[in-house]
Amino acid sequence: MLLSPMANQMNHFFSALADPTRRAVIERLVTGPAPVSELHAPHDIALPTFLKHLKVLEASGLVRSEKKGRVRIVHIEAAPLAEAEGWLQKQRRIWEGRLDRLEALAEHLERKSNGDLT
Amino acid sequence: MLLSPMANQMNHFFSALADPTRRAVIERLVTGPAPVSELHAPHDIALPTFLKHLKVLEASGLVRSEKKGRVRIVHIEAAPLAEAEGWLQKQRRIWEGRLDRLEALAEHLERKSNGDLT
Repeated sequence: MLLSPMANQMNHFFSALADPTRRAVIERLVTGPAPVSELHAPHDIALPTFLKHLKVLEASGLVRSEKKGRVRIVHIEAAPLAEAEGWLQKQRRIWEGRLDRLEALAEHLERKSNGDLT
Repeated sequence: MLLSPMANQMNHFFSALADPTRRAVIERLVTGPAPVSELHAPHDIALPTFLKHLKVLEASGLVRSEKKGRVRIVHIEAAPLAEAEGWLQKQRRIWEGRLDRLEALAEHLERKSNGDLT
């Protein structure tokens, strides 16, 4: 199957979010940029393993990093987060729209069976 | 690392959504339940491969299915979708709150440098 760049990107976003360490990094970064050492500190995993998680996040486009002197600072990229949220929101709205229509139909049928409608 | 049941569930949700075929199934199911054959029809992949995708979705809790006679009907489970959306929404709000505070701070500093404040 040929994937559109957009679909391909969504795969990477969701795949990057399918890990608790990576989600914890995102939860930290929405409050502001942080150096790698600070991001690593709360996690009881080896630094090389943690750096692999950061690489996955960076490859997915959810974060970017820049070197400042001897420290690497990591920033969140808000657009992909909004993209993933937008997709989920759209699905929920279609789903809720369907429920509303079903409810309206049920009400209509009930009134009809009560003789309120002809 | 020990995972809470909630974190574990989120891993499965996001991992299930990290595939365009599975997202297409979700996009179809939010409009209403469908038999497996109808879900498979638009996808140019072998049925056994498609069934594996359905299994991943079902294991993640995003869909459930039931046999009606000789037909298997697949339904969406809206709660996990809302869960994943809720997590993303929360991150965006924290991020936007931070931007608002930064903006307020920048305005304050500007007014101060203009001599509007003492």
